[in-house]
Amino acid sequence: MNEVLEQIRTRKSMRIFEDRRIEDNTKNEILQAALEAPTAGAMMLYSIIDITDKKLKERLSILCDNQPFIASAPMVVVFVADYQRWYDSFVYTDCNPRKPGEGDIVLAMADAMIAAQNTVVAAQSLGVGSCYIGDIIENCEQITEILELPEYVIPACMLVYGYPVDAQRNRKKPVRFEKQYIVSENKYHRLSEEEHIEMHKAKNEGSGLKDKNITEQVQAFCKRKYMSEFANEMNRSASSYLKKFRNK
Amino acid sequence: MNEVLEQIRTRKSMRIFEDRRIEDNTKNEILQAALEAPTAGAMMLYSIIDITDKKLKERLSILCDNQPFIASAPMVVVFVADYQRWYDSFVYTDCNPRKPGEGDIVLAMADAMIAAQNTVVAAQSLGVGSCYIGDIIENCEQITEILELPEYVIPACMLVYGYPVDAQRNRKKPVRFEKQYIVSENKYHRLSEEEHIEMHKAKNEGSGLKDKNITEQVQAFCKRKYMSEFANEMNRSASSYLKKFRNK
Repeated sequence: MNEVLEQIRTRKSMRIFEDRRIEDNTKNEILQAALEAPTAGAMMLYSIIDITDKKLKERLSILCDNQPFIASAPMVVVFVADYQRWYDSFVYTDCNPRKPGEGDIVLAMADAMIAAQNTVVAAQSLGVGSCYIGDIIENCEQITEILELPEYVIPACMLVYGYPVDAQRNRKKPVRFEKQYIVSENKYHRLSEEEHIEMHKAKNEGSGLKDKNITEQVQAFCKRKYMSEFANEMNRSASSYLKKFRNK
Repeated sequence: MNEVLEQIRTRKSMRIFEDRRIEDNTKNEILQAALEAPTAGAMMLYSIIDITDKKLKERLSILCDNQPFIASAPMVVVFVADYQRWYDSFVYTDCNPRKPGEGDIVLAMADAMIAAQNTVVAAQSLGVGSCYIGDIIENCEQITEILELPEYVIPACMLVYGYPVDAQRNRKKPVRFEKQYIVSENKYHRLSEEEHIEMHKAKNEGSGLKDKNITEQVQAFCKRKYMSEFANEMNRSASSYLKKFRNK
């Protein structure tokens, strides 16, 4: 296994970091990895907001489902899907452009996530841990205001980075669902009820939770995640962001 | 610069491949990189459709803006944002779940893109080139039908992979916009008209196109890409996909 595959294989989310600054050259290497990422038509349909202000980190940690570890992360970066930049370029050069649509912003979100994941892999190779914060999609009014996002810019993800404490570094990587439940050939495979049970069972076995009752486990997860207040808030905010791209 | 950063830095899109099969173990390593990727709440909100059927590749190459190189790629994979799997798990375990919303599917698209980009980096490290095909978001009716996508599954991207021919391998990587136009500190920076011109100028200089007229260049690009039929089609299809997640 080569070094790249090894880094990809061992990478897991890190939330708790040493109180240690990330050196400028390391930080630059991480951000540069975003700029080197594949991008639709070389358009770079994203922007990167480097959050260095302590008070702003605290504010974001509260707006992102109250997760204090965000405020204490040495490096916090917001990736936004950005169709404003190109729209403005089109306007400034008298192209008489149409408004960006839902396909445009979906493509921009893809670009932003591709760039974000490149920074995760780059950071990992430099001993820097990272954690995605999807909650940046919540509380759209406040996020838009404090990050001064214009009309055609919406948050794609936030990432926090830092040198992980040993307890985080030594944590077991969460077991994934097995390949057979994720990868299919030539068409989508919708899992049967039996396959669903098997999928969760196999994951539990890999996680040392062999005897867990699947029904109770999925029900608890559903309640805690899917039916949660933050999920409702994310749906409300995403809807509000996407609305601006809807064809009237 | 370590091996991971070097691979990220040198990676560029490859469209033309040698007529050479990708060995099973190499293909498995590439797909495994997706499964190792960060994923929201360890949910793996995506599925991967490995397109091995020749006729299906041809059909997809036509539906994706008529790009014949897709049909001749040795490995073609569709990444779909998938909330069907978890929704079904919730239904089977009597969770009485709400319908997935726009926040849920945005999170799933993020998951799918993160997984996709891991395969791109992994492939590159194995000498396998790749190219994203955003056009998979077009022609939603036909794509949904031929890939048998259920209600809560939408395509995030397609990727083609293969061993690049020398001409592709030796091609110059397209120059990116400079960092100062993409990265800002603590809030979004909306570029002024002057900065827009400078941004395009700097990119042209890096690309050996120093004397290009920026206005004409952006206008031609706008016409060819943004105001194109395929962009309209992508907007129409994305809208149709997202509609299913809209709160009624």
